[in-house]
Amino acid sequence: MFGVTILGNNSALPAYDRHPTAQLITLNEQLFLIDCGEGTQMQISRYRIRHSKIGHIFISHLHGDHYFGLIGLITSMGLLGREHPLNLFGPAELLQIINLQLEVAHTILPFSLIFHPLEKEGLILDHPKFSVSCFETKHRIPCWGFLISEKKNPRKIIREKVLEYGIPAAFYDQLKTGKDYINKNGELIQNELVTKANLPNRSYAFCADTVYTESIAEKVQNANLLYHETTYLKNLEERAAARYHSTTIQAASFARKANAKKLLIGHFSSKYEKLDEFLSETKEAFENTELAIEGVSYRIQYEI
Amino acid sequence: MFGVTILGNNSALPAYDRHPTAQLITLNEQLFLIDCGEGTQMQISRYRIRHSKIGHIFISHLHGDHYFGLIGLITSMGLLGREHPLNLFGPAELLQIINLQLEVAHTILPFSLIFHPLEKEGLILDHPKFSVSCFETKHRIPCWGFLISEKKNPRKIIREKVLEYGIPAAFYDQLKTGKDYINKNGELIQNELVTKANLPNRSYAFCADTVYTESIAEKVQNANLLYHETTYLKNLEERAAARYHSTTIQAASFARKANAKKLLIGHFSSKYEKLDEFLSETKEAFENTELAIEGVSYRIQYEI
Repeated sequence: MFGVTILGNNSALPAYDRHPTAQLITLNEQLFLIDCGEGTQMQISRYRIRHSKIGHIFISHLHGDHYFGLIGLITSMGLLGREHPLNLFGPAELLQIINLQLEVAHTILPFSLIFHPLEKEGLILDHPKFSVSCFETKHRIPCWGFLISEKKNPRKIIREKVLEYGIPAAFYDQLKTGKDYINKNGELIQNELVTKANLPNRSYAFCADTVYTESIAEKVQNANLLYHETTYLKNLEERAAARYHSTTIQAASFARKANAKKLLIGHFSSKYEKLDEFLSETKEAFENTELAIEGVSYRIQYEI
Repeated sequence: MFGVTILGNNSALPAYDRHPTAQLITLNEQLFLIDCGEGTQMQISRYRIRHSKIGHIFISHLHGDHYFGLIGLITSMGLLGREHPLNLFGPAELLQIINLQLEVAHTILPFSLIFHPLEKEGLILDHPKFSVSCFETKHRIPCWGFLISEKKNPRKIIREKVLEYGIPAAFYDQLKTGKDYINKNGELIQNELVTKANLPNRSYAFCADTVYTESIAEKVQNANLLYHETTYLKNLEERAAARYHSTTIQAASFARKANAKKLLIGHFSSKYEKLDEFLSETKEAFENTELAIEGVSYRIQYEI
């Protein structure tokens, strides 16, 4: 399982029961939270998510609609007796804010909060099955996007074939990496004869808040699912630029440049009650688009 | 109009669509907010309150369930272009937290945030028609209660009587304060003959979070409406004491000691889904009690 559940799809001002940014990533048995606007802990309860399963939280930037719910979530985790560590990734000043708020409340968390300041682009989490890297977007204040990628899956051994060719079990790990086998008679057994391709690796790119910038597209090429903000409809391109945000058409162009397989759009301005036009406008230029709707989970699909 | 609207009636962990503490006081044309737990700005929208009318915010203490929603509310006020000042009363460290959060977001508020640190008991706001004072409660960290009192209403002049006794208009203001009049013949006209009593002054006492402490009752004598927390039912008195909270029976005893006219109870623990027992237990010892229910406004009634 690899998917994203939207907990908040709105921009700064909460409106129409839409909430500020928060996304929950399910990856195998892992839960990651990306951004944590005010009310995220209530949204987590509303959608019956077990927050004890969240092991890693990634905060893109320090505008309130992306992190004001974090201290509440962390405090609640503590009140509920969490004991296992929580990894937190975000701009360096975030730790200062959290520590100050814990200190004035005389709160000592019953779990380790392991803080990883975001300082430069690149790998920030390396797991045997996946990796997370961060990249800079272009916003009014320093802002980070996140790319979550499955690692290349090993090839699958075809049991009857390895037996048929008499390949010793000790060589199986090398077969999985794609190596050919040479038997004791010096004959080469091509890897493709005894293994088959496994599922391809998938990736999710979260592009945070950003003004339209093509250079970022190079950093998130070929994502199976790409999240790009569309704060405004296409007629407000100037306002979007002035506020370091993007429009529908810009998100679509970005997705094309990034060769995304599918585009997910969100961070809708509170100006708009209905979201239909966000979808229709974006689809004009990038057909495989979906609206980020709160409470809905989007699978990150294999490329067909 | 003098009343209180409950925006949050729960203790630290949000549950059952109950929210952390926030109360809105309506006093004539003024709106005051007491405490501002996470999600208060959403609650304000939900109950269609115009937050631009809030001129004063009072924060009792720096446990998150009483202030984590403040920075979001202040930021939203700024985004919506508020220009008139906002007065904020709370523990001194609160300003440091807010300033740090505004600073990292490069946010400059378009209105003046006037901060009044709570440092000692007594008058904190003096208005021609009402006053607000603060008093210390007994909690795990420094915590303040608030007493909002109408000022004594001037006596009302009986027009036909002042004309009958030939009292000059220049003396009316003194009549309103209760003074007798002596006419040019040296005759004393008793005040009661030419004026009548106005409505009595009312008061609302918000006792914040506190362990049961009778000494506090002396500070809030005769309140028309007294809010006292009841985090737990009566069988959890030990737990309440250990956590510096109170039970139903303790709130009732407190209300008796304080000679309150009416008691409002809240800050219910997330342990409890249903609240019926809070009401029945408290009423056993203090009949004129109401549950603080979110979205409900409670008038502060004149003493009959």
